[in-house]
Amino acid sequence: MSNVTDDLLAQYRHLRQLAPFSHANSITPWLADGQAKYQRKLCDSLEQAIERSGLQDGMTLSFHHAFREGDMVINRVVETLARLGFKNLTLASSSLMSCNDALIEPIRAGVITKIYTSGMRGKLADAISHGLMEEPVQIHSHGGRVKLLQDGELKIDVAFLGVPCSDEFGNANGTHGTSCCGSLGYAMVDAQFARKVVLLTEALVPFPNMPASLVQDQVDYIVRVDQVGDPAKISVGAARVTSNPRELMIARTAADVIEHSGYFVDGFSLQTGSGASSTACTRFLAQKMERHGIAARFALGGITGSIVDLHEKGLIARLLDTQSFDGQAAASLEHNVNHIEISTSVYANPGAKAACCDQLDIVILSALEIDLDFNVNVITGSDGVMRGASGGHCDVAAAANLTIVVAPLTRSRIPTVVRRVTTLVTPGESIDVLVTDQGIAVNPARPEVRQRLAAAGLEVMDIEQLYQRAVALTGEPKAIEFTQRIVGVIRYRDGSVIDVVRQVKEDS
Amino acid sequence: MSNVTDDLLAQYRHLRQLAPFSHANSITPWLADGQAKYQRKLCDSLEQAIERSGLQDGMTLSFHHAFREGDMVINRVVETLARLGFKNLTLASSSLMSCNDALIEPIRAGVITKIYTSGMRGKLADAISHGLMEEPVQIHSHGGRVKLLQDGELKIDVAFLGVPCSDEFGNANGTHGTSCCGSLGYAMVDAQFARKVVLLTEALVPFPNMPASLVQDQVDYIVRVDQVGDPAKISVGAARVTSNPRELMIARTAADVIEHSGYFVDGFSLQTGSGASSTACTRFLAQKMERHGIAARFALGGITGSIVDLHEKGLIARLLDTQSFDGQAAASLEHNVNHIEISTSVYANPGAKAACCDQLDIVILSALEIDLDFNVNVITGSDGVMRGASGGHCDVAAAANLTIVVAPLTRSRIPTVVRRVTTLVTPGESIDVLVTDQGIAVNPARPEVRQRLAAAGLEVMDIEQLYQRAVALTGEPKAIEFTQRIVGVIRYRDGSVIDVVRQVKEDS
Repeated sequence: MSNVTDDLLAQYRHLRQLAPFSHANSITPWLADGQAKYQRKLCDSLEQAIERSGLQDGMTLSFHHAFREGDMVINRVVETLARLGFKNLTLASSSLMSCNDALIEPIRAGVITKIYTSGMRGKLADAISHGLMEEPVQIHSHGGRVKLLQDGELKIDVAFLGVPCSDEFGNANGTHGTSCCGSLGYAMVDAQFARKVVLLTEALVPFPNMPASLVQDQVDYIVRVDQVGDPAKISVGAARVTSNPRELMIARTAADVIEHSGYFVDGFSLQTGSGASSTACTRFLAQKMERHGIAARFALGGITGSIVDLHEKGLIARLLDTQSFDGQAAASLEHNVNHIEISTSVYANPGAKAACCDQLDIVILSALEIDLDFNVNVITGSDGVMRGASGGHCDVAAAANLTIVVAPLTRSRIPTVVRRVTTLVTPGESIDVLVTDQGIAVNPARPEVRQRLAAAGLEVMDIEQLYQRAVALTGEPKAIEFTQRIVGVIRYRDGSVIDVVRQVKEDS
Repeated sequence: MSNVTDDLLAQYRHLRQLAPFSHANSITPWLADGQAKYQRKLCDSLEQAIERSGLQDGMTLSFHHAFREGDMVINRVVETLARLGFKNLTLASSSLMSCNDALIEPIRAGVITKIYTSGMRGKLADAISHGLMEEPVQIHSHGGRVKLLQDGELKIDVAFLGVPCSDEFGNANGTHGTSCCGSLGYAMVDAQFARKVVLLTEALVPFPNMPASLVQDQVDYIVRVDQVGDPAKISVGAARVTSNPRELMIARTAADVIEHSGYFVDGFSLQTGSGASSTACTRFLAQKMERHGIAARFALGGITGSIVDLHEKGLIARLLDTQSFDGQAAASLEHNVNHIEISTSVYANPGAKAACCDQLDIVILSALEIDLDFNVNVITGSDGVMRGASGGHCDVAAAANLTIVVAPLTRSRIPTVVRRVTTLVTPGESIDVLVTDQGIAVNPARPEVRQRLAAAGLEVMDIEQLYQRAVALTGEPKAIEFTQRIVGVIRYRDGSVIDVVRQVKEDS
């Protein structure tokens, strides 16, 4: 019906590279098939989705960890791949948890031979710390993971993303359906970068399931499964209200530090974690905000119910949510119009054209260890074994105007303040204040902050004094003996190697 | 502070390619600069933004046309580039309008030497049709434009995107501020694909300006300008309510055709245009929907106030909006939670992993000419001069289950139904029904539709009969005489060439 031919195009210099029209559906054959038109992405089984994804030995697969300890996708997919005989895969989950102990066996069997993750816990972390894998685990931050994807070091071949609901085109979110995880901030990045995207969804809902967090033009295949996660286990370990007097003291002191830091002004911004002290601090801070008539512009990062409470009281104008830490946060994301889902790239990617963390005034972070140079370890325990996660720690520490680390001075007769961290995750240059139950220390690089706190009557010590106090309580800890073998590589957010984790000597 | 050195990494096979940590802000130097941290994207002037964007002679620049005839960005940027001495640029605006007559001079001067656009009108179209440019204009559909970007034929070096509001990181939308255009569906694609993105914004608002249509991780530079567009001119020519009896007759007949087509069932979906007949048809259809208790799942594409009325009455569950055709639509996008902004990729890109148009049941489209094979021309007038736009015409025609073309049988004594279209834009295989003021024709490829309409008492003619009736009224039109020179290339949505537009002979 078109008169355009190769001969015609060949006659014109500007048109030679172009092809003549053939028929209306040459690249969209499904439009001529009443069933394929609507169902071409749907798979009968996970096995079929894997086959259609083109996954091959040696490729990289990814997952999100929005369900945290309640995740039901990672183990299931890896077990299926093991059963199908896949080998030599790279596992790039945004993080791994205690619920992923089941991965030990597929790793031992050579199904998974390389791992990128923000962290590890439980038996899996223990086994890897003791030499389970030939190749060291790459530990990245949340922002740093996106940088690795941008730079092409990490290339996701197939992302397997669990969601509570999707339509048949792949429009999906984490806020409607049975098992709601809230923000899909991690998954949004994988959907953007992965060559192929497989959704595992609990519910198939009618098109258009919009607004969507994962959008149809990012999704290749969809498979319905019974359950993708248990939302009740998202907030395991992150107590809502603490009655522990040490934690309450830390929280109260941290709130006092914020109040007098110079950053507690109307329109400030903050990020708190999900820990007990952080959560309690948020409540103390709310009282100060109400008393002084101060409201925050936004809260960032992982969002908890206590942050939602402040938002709903009008004390925080917007919530920028990359991970919903509990059911209340997930519900708020669904119904509060100024509770906004953001990807981890928008959150904290140092290679992005802008990252929200760059706008942060105040962040409260945790630490397993902090040393005399304010360097922080959130990965290894005092026994040298991995049991934590990098998370957004070094991302927001670098970016915020005031980075506060909260931690008990000692834990179970083990000092938190140490001469030198076992593993360096966040450099001391990014940490401004340490708040413990036994006192406050301010980084010497921030004399003006120390001055302000002192002027407000807060007792500020040198970190060396806190260290001496800790050692007086616990004794100088015995040095850990390591082998030369490297089991973990700590990647700074820019992709560089900031530290390595060595295998602990068996008899140490 | 880190113990990691090149020497250490060199010792381990898996780590050799990695770099040791240097300092916290090695790739984020702005974090160490209290002003740059917040303002590094802000430019004092358009000239500065152009300089920082790295635009060079021979490169490609892009624009969106959401303000339609009210646009104030395209001419301004091109005039500035002309003044700065740029040459040999490719202009890739999502479309061009009568308001772009000012481009003639920069084209003549060699500032712009190549154009990609969905369409052209006014003096610019006339000048190009008469040979203004050496290289033919590439005319694409809205979905096809995204395909050209995906395929890399069209590479945007710098996108200049006008918005009513943005924060200093580049979070922007079209629904808040003074000059609101509503959906930024075209701009979203450019922000995704362009190497560099410059926002021209009327207002700089506090961070975080979220939810955002254009997101901070897509935006490089921001410049404040007095005005980016006049929203009053978005809906020029698209009358809200017609009293023209021919248009009302076409509208009423089209509504009858829809009712009896077999696709008018609860949960159907539709796209209507902005033309007078389409708008009137929407109103007749609303009466039928209320009478039969039928509601639509969604309406797609360019959204008008009359479609918003149906949404707010509960007759259409969701509006998927790639372009807001009037102020009522823009306002609705801001306050109706189920009025959803979508990019032209999500709307209609045949190379996307899914396009919304594939879910369309019914679409009403216009035509300048339609021929005996149901081929449609929406680009050239009967004099062979370009004066229209491809738009989403061939995209949705190919995808919808029922594609209806509405047109008067004759216009100013010129037939609309012709033996052979002057320019082929949408192939007849995609068109199902033609509704004119003088009768209905059904594509012979759809006998079941013809049968249903006939069974309902609608008089269906052969398109040859309509043609004869038109010619009886107007006489057989004189053939247009063309030169061999090609001034326009009509690209089908898959990127192929479906027709070419030749220069009209001056004396014809």
